[in-house]
Amino acid sequence: MTVEFPSFTQTLLAAKKAKGLTFVDLEKLLGQDEVWIASLFYGQNSASVEQATKIAEALGLGEDIITALSSYPSKGLGPVVPTDPLIYRFYEIMQVYGYPIKEIIHEKFGDGIMSAIDFTLDIDKVEDPKGDRVKVTMNGKFLPYKKW
Amino acid sequence: MTVEFPSFTQTLLAAKKAKGLTFVDLEKLLGQDEVWIASLFYGQNSASVEQATKIAEALGLGEDIITALSSYPSKGLGPVVPTDPLIYRFYEIMQVYGYPIKEIIHEKFGDGIMSAIDFTLDIDKVEDPKGDRVKVTMNGKFLPYKKW
Amino acid sequence: MTVEFPSFTQTLLAAKKAKGLTFVDLEKLLGQDEVWIASLFYGQNSASVEQATKIAEALGLGEDIITALSSYPSKGLGPVVPTDPLIYRFYEIMQVYGYPIKEIIHEKFGDGIMSAIDFTLDIDKVEDPKGDRVKVTMNGKFLPYKKW
Amino acid sequence: MTVEFPSFTQTLLAAKKAKGLTFVDLEKLLGQDEVWIASLFYGQNSASVEQATKIAEALGLGEDIITALSSYPSKGLGPVVPTDPLIYRFYEIMQVYGYPIKEIIHEKFGDGIMSAIDFTLDIDKVEDPKGDRVKVTMNGKFLPYKKW
Amino acid sequence: MTVEFPSFTQTLLAAKKAKGLTFVDLEKLLGQDEVWIASLFYGQNSASVEQATKIAEALGLGEDIITALSSYPSKGLGPVVPTDPLIYRFYEIMQVYGYPIKEIIHEKFGDGIMSAIDFTLDIDKVEDPKGDRVKVTMNGKFLPYKKW
Amino acid sequence: MTVEFPSFTQTLLAAKKAKGLTFVDLEKLLGQDEVWIASLFYGQNSASVEQATKIAEALGLGEDIITALSSYPSKGLGPVVPTDPLIYRFYEIMQVYGYPIKEIIHEKFGDGIMSAIDFTLDIDKVEDPKGDRVKVTMNGKFLPYKKW
Amino acid sequence: MTVEFPSFTQTLLAAKKAKGLTFVDLEKLLGQDEVWIASLFYGQNSASVEQATKIAEALGLGEDIITALSSYPSKGLGPVVPTDPLIYRFYEIMQVYGYPIKEIIHEKFGDGIMSAIDFTLDIDKVEDPKGDRVKVTMNGKFLPYKKW
Amino acid sequence: MTVEFPSFTQTLLAAKKAKGLTFVDLEKLLGQDEVWIASLFYGQNSASVEQATKIAEALGLGEDIITALSSYPSKGLGPVVPTDPLIYRFYEIMQVYGYPIKEIIHEKFGDGIMSAIDFTLDIDKVEDPKGDRVKVTMNGKFLPYKKW
Amino acid sequence: MTVEFPSFTQTLLAAKKAKGLTFVDLEKLLGQDEVWIASLFYGQNSASVEQATKIAEALGLGEDIITALSSYPSKGLGPVVPTDPLIYRFYEIMQVYGYPIKEIIHEKFGDGIMSAIDFTLDIDKVEDPKGDRVKVTMNGKFLPYKKW
Amino acid sequence: MTVEFPSFTQTLLAAKKAKGLTFVDLEKLLGQDEVWIASLFYGQNSASVEQATKIAEALGLGEDIITALSSYPSKGLGPVVPTDPLIYRFYEIMQVYGYPIKEIIHEKFGDGIMSAIDFTLDIDKVEDPKGDRVKVTMNGKFLPYKKW
Repeated sequence: MTVEFPSFTQTLLAAKKAKGLTFVDLEKLLGQDEVWIASLFYGQNSASVEQATKIAEALGLGEDIITALSSYPSKGLGPVVPTDPLIYRFYEIMQVYGYPIKEIIHEKFGDGIMSAIDFTLDIDKVEDPKGDRVKVTMNGKFLPYKKW
Repeated sequence: MTVEFPSFTQTLLAAKKAKGLTFVDLEKLLGQDEVWIASLFYGQNSASVEQATKIAEALGLGEDIITALSSYPSKGLGPVVPTDPLIYRFYEIMQVYGYPIKEIIHEKFGDGIMSAIDFTLDIDKVEDPKGDRVKVTMNGKFLPYKKW
Repeated sequence: MTVEFPSFTQTLLAAKKAKGLTFVDLEKLLGQDEVWIASLFYGQNSASVEQATKIAEALGLGEDIITALSSYPSKGLGPVVPTDPLIYRFYEIMQVYGYPIKEIIHEKFGDGIMSAIDFTLDIDKVEDPKGDRVKVTMNGKFLPYKKW
Repeated sequence: MTVEFPSFTQTLLAAKKAKGLTFVDLEKLLGQDEVWIASLFYGQNSASVEQATKIAEALGLGEDIITALSSYPSKGLGPVVPTDPLIYRFYEIMQVYGYPIKEIIHEKFGDGIMSAIDFTLDIDKVEDPKGDRVKVTMNGKFLPYKKW
Repeated sequence: MTVEFPSFTQTLLAAKKAKGLTFVDLEKLLGQDEVWIASLFYGQNSASVEQATKIAEALGLGEDIITALSSYPSKGLGPVVPTDPLIYRFYEIMQVYGYPIKEIIHEKFGDGIMSAIDFTLDIDKVEDPKGDRVKVTMNGKFLPYKKW
Repeated sequence: MTVEFPSFTQTLLAAKKAKGLTFVDLEKLLGQDEVWIASLFYGQNSASVEQATKIAEALGLGEDIITALSSYPSKGLGPVVPTDPLIYRFYEIMQVYGYPIKEIIHEKFGDGIMSAIDFTLDIDKVEDPKGDRVKVTMNGKFLPYKKW
Repeated sequence: MTVEFPSFTQTLLAAKKAKGLTFVDLEKLLGQDEVWIASLFYGQNSASVEQATKIAEALGLGEDIITALSSYPSKGLGPVVPTDPLIYRFYEIMQVYGYPIKEIIHEKFGDGIMSAIDFTLDIDKVEDPKGDRVKVTMNGKFLPYKKW
Repeated sequence: MTVEFPSFTQTLLAAKKAKGLTFVDLEKLLGQDEVWIASLFYGQNSASVEQATKIAEALGLGEDIITALSSYPSKGLGPVVPTDPLIYRFYEIMQVYGYPIKEIIHEKFGDGIMSAIDFTLDIDKVEDPKGDRVKVTMNGKFLPYKKW
Repeated sequence: MTVEFPSFTQTLLAAKKAKGLTFVDLEKLLGQDEVWIASLFYGQNSASVEQATKIAEALGLGEDIITALSSYPSKGLGPVVPTDPLIYRFYEIMQVYGYPIKEIIHEKFGDGIMSAIDFTLDIDKVEDPKGDRVKVTMNGKFLPYKKW
Repeated sequence: MTVEFPSFTQTLLAAKKAKGLTFVDLEKLLGQDEVWIASLFYGQNSASVEQATKIAEALGLGEDIITALSSYPSKGLGPVVPTDPLIYRFYEIMQVYGYPIKEIIHEKFGDGIMSAIDFTLDIDKVEDPKGDRVKVTMNGKFLPYKKW
């Protein structure tokens, strides 16, 4: 399905392309990770007004973008089961490795979950003569179930 | 929803508990990662007959388990949208960070995907005075789209 | 739809009825809230072995129940949209008041969520001549989105 | 998914921001709870013409808004399973604690439900050195099933 | 789809048939409406122990049935969209006449709903030379939305 | 979800409001029931050209509305499971009372259904000191299954 | 998906095969159409006790089958979208030709529907040198929408 | 749900109405069946350029319509389960009579299906003093499963 | 999800393994393709009694298997969207390449489809130093849309 | 359902038609397969800027098209279950032959999948006096599951 992005996503991506900037450039400018900045572009996180202003200035965009980037977005994109192959693989990992991951986390930590809020996600390129590899590192606080 | 696991999952988990073994113990025994071994327990990967035999022996289980662990399972567990909170967080990460991840991988690698087959997944406990953290490291080969 | 509960749920409820105990009685015995104890009965939380043993003893049940109550269950029950009217009303509240709640929480706390893990839930009966009222109090830690 | 709000929601939120008003300010002006007022903004409840006029005046908005706020809206927002993490947690609570809540309400009140119509919902910030907490209080009339 | 009824439904229906009783006979015995009694048979309402005992005695059934009829069932039967033509017509009426009904109820009563809990439902056969007619009368308390 | 109505619904409702007319006024004008007229407004039934002209004249509307009201609409509104609480209650009645109703209709009439086409639906306000009641009367021809 | 048929379907089909009977043989015996008889086998229609007895005798089956065939079944089989190719083609015809059929029926008859209850369905083999053809003839009473 | 038709459907239906033509008139003009022509109007089949030109001329429409009618459309209309009662009855027939039809076709023809491509569909009005009847005749080539 | 296979699938696969046979061995025995034979094992095609007997004999199985393999099965397996990664890739190909394939087939053949009934499917292993390749060849009769 | 294509699809198809070009013509121009080029038209693959420029020039289109064709699209089109008969047949093949294919691939290659990324797809017309045939050849790298 054609996924509906927030209206400002296209504006941000086009401006970034026109300026010849990469997300790594923005990472350096902002002092925040490139993935987190990309998540702002897709309306999945909120920046402070200062951060939003820096981005808008770097991309030659105005007030509207600052407002959009610093508001509290309704999160979650795409259909219930994603159809884009790159994104689907993460759905597949959840389907195939979900219960094994649950088993190991409970064994290491007890009952609880990995937070997806107090959470970071990094993407690295690992060069490899047999074909480069994508390394995705998720790091979330363990939240034990409160007993009351 | 009550998820239906393969019939042998309960047998394996109960035997492991009865023997007082952890997945780390099995990792040492087998020379394979604990997450991968847990994925065998849930019928999500297949072992060689040698590996299956080692597991069966360690757990005091018989032929049936060796056959089960070394066959080619139908993969994928649980409902379309998972209801278990620990597993749901991975669905949420896919929903919230899916397009930002896609953006970054394309910027770093071009058009293609991270393989979920030529792929490893590790789980580490990162101790932290403000609350321990779960670190999940995914490492998959980048597969560029073939143009034909 | 007929919801599938864990196999031990019926055993626990029948034993509790046979013993003439209420959840408030169990609350006193365990020093934990009645809702949390009911969530154990439905396989939605895990007790320590000590807590599980106390419950099993109070209900005249054996090892199996202790194991069941102290394992790490796969959580979430019932169909995607609940059909039981009592439970549906909570779905309706989420549908009708979800965005207003989001608006108010963001105004009071900034970007983040109310934890459903570091979380308690209490139910009180408020007597009222025009008809008694059900008071449900949810109390979850505010988790601000980490910027990385 | 990008949720479709009523067309007037954006107008109301932008005007409120431009005027520098909080929902608490509107609560004082109207003598109604901030959550209920936020539910008006999202087209989930209806105000009297007097109440709608007060809000429109406070926000510098006209007839259209008064009509919108005082009509009888079609209620319910967002996808079947919400993707916004803040709102999803309420879906999760319903999935995980739905049957335990049902059990306790029936034990305390007999067969019936908590009304989501003769109902109030309040949100409080509970300061806590270990992290502030969100307190959500729902209060609905108990409606016993009529036998006929 | 083959709908899963509670296990006792078949027992009750078979016993009623064996005894040659109609729901109208049970209505006379119990002093409650035939539809309400049929809803007990399908596990959709709960009887008092006295009522359950009367039914069990009339049908020559034992303790189990009394327990089943007097417990608090998980309500709602059949698939999301019913496939049985008789039941589907009620889904169709909701789809086709839902908004017109909403419009008329709001015009007559203001904002609120018809209760499905403080509610009765009767079925009458209206003889008609051009073909008998089914008359279904629903009678539910109007519940106005509380403003708080 | 925001339900999509036919484009003329808003025009008709706004004109009716501007003229200060109720559906009962239109009932008197047309000699047809208010619910049926409301169903025309929502594009769920078709009027004769004469009836459509009378409505258009009463509301000060033109040819377009006459055409719209006298064409054969594609029927059915709203999502698969309705989210508006007033309409949901009819879905709930179908879920909870569907099989009991089926049982009683078959006992009274044999195998067949209540027509939703050769069908009328009336809504009355029944005043009651304990709270007014909504009375919905459905009257459909019984259609026996043809055996061939 | 493996479709769940009523438990008696397999019994009837196996007995028919063992007796070497075709549905045309049963058509002659009963004086009812073979399709209608097949619909009895799948629990989609109900026979009189006389008809059910004739079938049971012909197939050498007992009381249980007579009861099953003469009760009022819950109708509708298979998943929401059928996966069996033969049955799917009827779903496809409804998807592709549904609106064209609606257009033509309205042009010929006005607003209303073809009954699926006062309805017959016949299947004929039309021999053709280029490949035999399946002829399906549906014949249902036109039911005009009642205006009330 | 409001079904989305191809953009040219409305143009064609309005032009046909303005010209006072029926589908039978177009059938005579084109020498093709009225149902097939209606399927062109809804973008469910493709005409030759000659046929498309004849239709466009008869309706006073231009190049765009000729292009639209002679292109290869993406077929299938309406929601997964249709809500329009006239179209739903065909879904119901597939749900209720699907397996009986399958049984009879296999008995008469062996393993295979009725083609929905090498296929015709006719609609006739059968006058009947007890109420006119709709006769739908489907005629599709039997396609035996190839064994390879 | 754990997919439900026909009950005889496991019997056939276990017997084949016990006999040390491959599908290629069965291909030689039967003179039919290995994929077609595998489709018999999963209840997705029907064999003649002679073919079924040969298979049963080769595997040391009895009458039941002959009956099962030569009956007309209800086809289609697994969930709406497959979760097994090997099978999902075919779903993905349909999602990603469906419209391009449609475009090319229409350009080469005109309006119509590739039959999935008069159809063969072969799987070959293509050895390749950079990694072996799976070659899947589908060959189906082109069926032009009949105009009537 | 009316499928939403990327906005540039219609532009490309119309320009191709206006220029009187076939996909085979474009295949010759680009030195890439016609199916791959058609996948570009539907936004399902990405071209290099050089390739995109060649296509734009051949079709007389400008910068916008070059940008569109060389960006990294969100892939996957159409509803969860396709309704277009040509595309549905591929869904049906996956439903009916999915597990047989899995069985054969595992027997020939071991545990792993056929890549849909390192993958080609060709369509050939095979002339046949009994009716031309569509030959679809898929060729994907076998990816063995990594054990870690």
